[in-house]
Amino acid sequence: MKLLKDKIIQEGKVLSENVLKVDSFLNHQIDPVLMQAIGEEFANRYKDAGITKVLTIETSGIAPSMFAALTFGVPVVFAKKSKSLTLSDNLYTSKVHSFTKGVTNDISISKDFLESDDVVLIIDDFLANGQAVLGLLDILEQANARTAGVGIVIEKGFQTGGSIIRERGIRVDSLANIKSLANGKVEFFEESSSK
Amino acid sequence: MKLLKDKIIQEGKVLSENVLKVDSFLNHQIDPVLMQAIGEEFANRYKDAGITKVLTIETSGIAPSMFAALTFGVPVVFAKKSKSLTLSDNLYTSKVHSFTKGVTNDISISKDFLESDDVVLIIDDFLANGQAVLGLLDILEQANARTAGVGIVIEKGFQTGGSIIRERGIRVDSLANIKSLANGKVEFFEESSSK
Repeated sequence: MKLLKDKIIQEGKVLSENVLKVDSFLNHQIDPVLMQAIGEEFANRYKDAGITKVLTIETSGIAPSMFAALTFGVPVVFAKKSKSLTLSDNLYTSKVHSFTKGVTNDISISKDFLESDDVVLIIDDFLANGQAVLGLLDILEQANARTAGVGIVIEKGFQTGGSIIRERGIRVDSLANIKSLANGKVEFFEESSSK
Repeated sequence: MKLLKDKIIQEGKVLSENVLKVDSFLNHQIDPVLMQAIGEEFANRYKDAGITKVLTIETSGIAPSMFAALTFGVPVVFAKKSKSLTLSDNLYTSKVHSFTKGVTNDISISKDFLESDDVVLIIDDFLANGQAVLGLLDILEQANARTAGVGIVIEKGFQTGGSIIRERGIRVDSLANIKSLANGKVEFFEESSSK
């Protein structure tokens, strides 16, 4: 997606060979015009998939999910990273390790918001080691819901998450797929969408 | 806002005299059509205020903020509840106590995303004790930015947060202002918007 790649080139900060900081438009400050374009792109790619819910994980997946869900006319459900006291125990849970933050979180989704007849598009901001998506897939299996695919804003294609998920036969659409962050420079794979 | 009040009556769950659970459309599952209506309502109320940024706090303030910001044509900035390893120390910080979760969090915003010439609309999902908004106001003061007002989806008008903030001369717009949750029933104040 050219608009997104241009934004990454213009505003992304390469902090190391593994870390790309996009705090100016995705992870801290958020560009709503770009998020709308991203959400609508996901909705267009999955327009014939019969999506009934968009599933994401707090926090940065919520913005693009909102616009995709608005286009589909379906709700967003976001997985929570820790139990809130106002949530009951009626939960699907899984564990997600964040290599960026160095912590393992329980993620949870209320059983009220996932049904066995749901057809779900997962959306997240980054795909690197794939831990967050694997946790969401685990929860979708627990709920016997169907996974239509995974929409990712920025995939770090040089890490293993994308391969692990695609090898399970799951469709992954990355709007920007990064080949390398070497030498302080962002290099993209030519083809950023795949089954 | 009638659409919102109707939704609260239909789907809100009164767990106690202090706790209203709206997990089916705001805090866990999110209704994008309602969020768009809410965001546009805030944008309309502040359309002449010269807003340059919408400020919120993760997680549930992000969805309505996106649609307000899209209408204004300005970015959203969300305060983070804990430092991420990919954030530098170039931060404004404040402390926020959550009575719901029983924890005190540091909240932080990168100095890169608040300027002294910013005119800011704060948006959040709930206003109860006002701790989150007071933390955001503290950060706006540190940045010497101007606060145009505070847009709240659901105010618990029987708690003290709204009074504390209004007494500081700050405009607060609540789209639903709850008078009481007694006897398992939601009762609204007649007038839910105020200066």
